[in-house]
Amino acid sequence: MIIIGERINTSRKRVTEAIERKDKIFFQEEARKQEDAGADYIDVNCGTRIDTELDEFLWLVDLIQEVVSVPLSLDSADPKVLAAGLKRVDKRPIINSITLEKDRFNKVAPILEGDRAHVIALCMDEAGPPNKTEKTVENALGLVEKLEAIGISQSSIFLDPLIQPIATNKENGNIVLNAMGIIKKKVPDVNLTCGLSNISFGLPKRFLVNRTFIVAAMFVGLNSAIVDPLDKKLMTNIITAEMIFGLDEYCVKYTEAIRTGRMVT
Amino acid sequence: MIIIGERINTSRKRVTEAIERKDKIFFQEEARKQEDAGADYIDVNCGTRIDTELDEFLWLVDLIQEVVSVPLSLDSADPKVLAAGLKRVDKRPIINSITLEKDRFNKVAPILEGDRAHVIALCMDEAGPPNKTEKTVENALGLVEKLEAIGISQSSIFLDPLIQPIATNKENGNIVLNAMGIIKKKVPDVNLTCGLSNISFGLPKRFLVNRTFIVAAMFVGLNSAIVDPLDKKLMTNIITAEMIFGLDEYCVKYTEAIRTGRMVT
Repeated sequence: MIIIGERINTSRKRVTEAIERKDKIFFQEEARKQEDAGADYIDVNCGTRIDTELDEFLWLVDLIQEVVSVPLSLDSADPKVLAAGLKRVDKRPIINSITLEKDRFNKVAPILEGDRAHVIALCMDEAGPPNKTEKTVENALGLVEKLEAIGISQSSIFLDPLIQPIATNKENGNIVLNAMGIIKKKVPDVNLTCGLSNISFGLPKRFLVNRTFIVAAMFVGLNSAIVDPLDKKLMTNIITAEMIFGLDEYCVKYTEAIRTGRMVT
Repeated sequence: MIIIGERINTSRKRVTEAIERKDKIFFQEEARKQEDAGADYIDVNCGTRIDTELDEFLWLVDLIQEVVSVPLSLDSADPKVLAAGLKRVDKRPIINSITLEKDRFNKVAPILEGDRAHVIALCMDEAGPPNKTEKTVENALGLVEKLEAIGISQSSIFLDPLIQPIATNKENGNIVLNAMGIIKKKVPDVNLTCGLSNISFGLPKRFLVNRTFIVAAMFVGLNSAIVDPLDKKLMTNIITAEMIFGLDEYCVKYTEAIRTGRMVT
């Protein structure tokens, strides 16, 4: 499971406050804690800082790279921020994100030239996030085709099928799980990721829904998620699910995680 | 989800001790607690009491029926015990269990005549529990065919695909999950149940494995399980999974379970 640590995002109040006081130590600790907890990428997003995003983004990229050995997920709605971040990183990052929307695709595609980065590809076009399995699959295959056409290899692509909340339609879980299963069969070398917490929007005790849903998603082929790696109960379920689905030879990772206290039991 | 409460089983030391001192109150409380926690059937098994099984079984059946409104799961290796239990119950029970083994099938089949009971059908023949998806499916379909031939309706059958431990083969989870998915597609009216805890045999913190595995099993079609309904963490996952898979209209059961403190969060 490829864990993209989501904590450094200015939609969190504490993160915005730390940016405002230029608290380098706060961010280096946030980054290091996520790596220690198992993050394979550290996501960086200061998209709410409209006027100052570019400078603050590069400041974050620099200070995080000083202290972690994992690569970054460069997360912005602004292609200029993504391009500047890509020039600044010293390890192959994830570009977060591209979509099938023509304008968005055409602005982000040049940044990816030469297969220099992984990319999160959101399965949406001008019509917005899909609400049918077939449309999600169609968007996914459309993205893979267009990305391959500009030289991006399948293993560089992280498709995000865009989970919709179960509270608005009880079939939303099945819709996206079925889509994931079909996509994984059609393009097995492509990675599947998701912004997990959408599934529980509008419900009480959201973390409970999130950490249950991820088990089923991993069964149908999810091999990455944008999550908080410090959520020990979630990570417990991920490590256990990897074992159950045959990805943990001799149950070594599971038993080691129990031995070292990484599991909530 | 059809919950078969497994607590009244003489393989538990406390249960054997209570039988020995003829502790009616103990068993009535055990039965009532399981019903309150959501059990749809109360399993009764005193199979370790070789010389006294029949009398003690009927004693248990009588005293449990005094206090619960749910039916029983009559659980014995001895067809005579099953037959006597069936005569004694006042609600349509589950007969636990039949197999494809010729001798076992021929001894239990007459008890089921007239479709008077549900039946748990273990997907094994003379060769023992299967360790391949194809063999599990073959045994399952063989059981359905033979049971239908003696007049048992599909909805009376609870197929148990016989989960094997993940600790002995990392593919054992996938083998049984894939079998369940195929069986559910081929005979959708048949119920799928399981003795859940086999999956975690030989591992530390088994309950963690059990309650993670059941989520994936429910996704592929498991609609019943033989479990401890007093395991609140397991029940939490079951209730959450039902919602995620579209079985909880307007998320009513989930939110109600949170409101009434039935969930561990």
